[in-house]
Amino acid sequence: MFEEKTVSSQEVFKGKLLRVRVDQVLLPDGRESSREIVEHPGAAAVVPLDHEGYVYMVRQYRKPLEEDLLEIPSGTREKGEDTLECVKRELSEEVGLQAGNLSLLASLCTSPGFCNERIDIFLAEELSPSEGQQDQDEFLNVEKYLFTEAITMIEQGKIKDAKTASGLLLAAARLAKK
Amino acid sequence: MFEEKTVSSQEVFKGKLLRVRVDQVLLPDGRESSREIVEHPGAAAVVPLDHEGYVYMVRQYRKPLEEDLLEIPSGTREKGEDTLECVKRELSEEVGLQAGNLSLLASLCTSPGFCNERIDIFLAEELSPSEGQQDQDEFLNVEKYLFTEAITMIEQGKIKDAKTASGLLLAAARLAKK
Repeated sequence: MFEEKTVSSQEVFKGKLLRVRVDQVLLPDGRESSREIVEHPGAAAVVPLDHEGYVYMVRQYRKPLEEDLLEIPSGTREKGEDTLECVKRELSEEVGLQAGNLSLLASLCTSPGFCNERIDIFLAEELSPSEGQQDQDEFLNVEKYLFTEAITMIEQGKIKDAKTASGLLLAAARLAKK
Repeated sequence: MFEEKTVSSQEVFKGKLLRVRVDQVLLPDGRESSREIVEHPGAAAVVPLDHEGYVYMVRQYRKPLEEDLLEIPSGTREKGEDTLECVKRELSEEVGLQAGNLSLLASLCTSPGFCNERIDIFLAEELSPSEGQQDQDEFLNVEKYLFTEAITMIEQGKIKDAKTASGLLLAAARLAKK
């Protein structure tokens, strides 16, 4: 459609997690503009729902916001790791669970205006304790809420994380069809 | 809770839109780690819903993903602009509408792991043509869908943008209570 062809591209930062570049682009009307772009390896997240109707979330400090947030388990994809491996690892490391049934809810772009991050959000059911140990390196608290209460917490502003809001609401829509 | 105190902070990029810094932080167990952080001015987005049950969205090319995405109208807050001014401006510039009724659905963090962006998502009702002109500088197509169809398009993967998925699903929850 309104494709923006790259005229030139300059890397301005290369970190352990992120790479940042500035692209000079050609707009559809022939003018030029610049785009500041953050490259991210992609992530996976999961709504772990048990047979009693409880959802498991984690509360952790988020340095960019200088506050702690309540989120569904999630993590950045490690090098060479596929999305299903990633989500199983995070489910085990963060909340100590494994799932008998994992199904994709959606694959979403978190900030398409400046970042290429995509996050695959899964619903995890038929939960049982995982065999692996919970990651001791992660500073987080596991919190368990009734699924219906978690939905209300989005509207109340107690859940502020976009992937968590999307994941819970998509899971609610999926479950309503069952 | 598990606060991470800043030991030192280094700016690594300062662009027109984004600022990127690397913070050296003190973890709760006394060890140090680094955090790559993208600073963003914040944004506002809006679900414009007319009295016939149609929602207005825009399709635009997103350079970071090299594809076009279908999204609710949204934009970055300009300097000194508050969130309500921002959402009214975007509603007029992107889809040529003004709203008799604007209500906040949620204020969400898009990528709390590495970015401080918050986006305020509104529901706009009682729509009428805006007095201002649509912005000629934006390369986008306006598309109109039945609200119920738009919800289905999230599940089908035709809507891939996280703020759009959250906004539509939160609007559906709000409307279900009316």
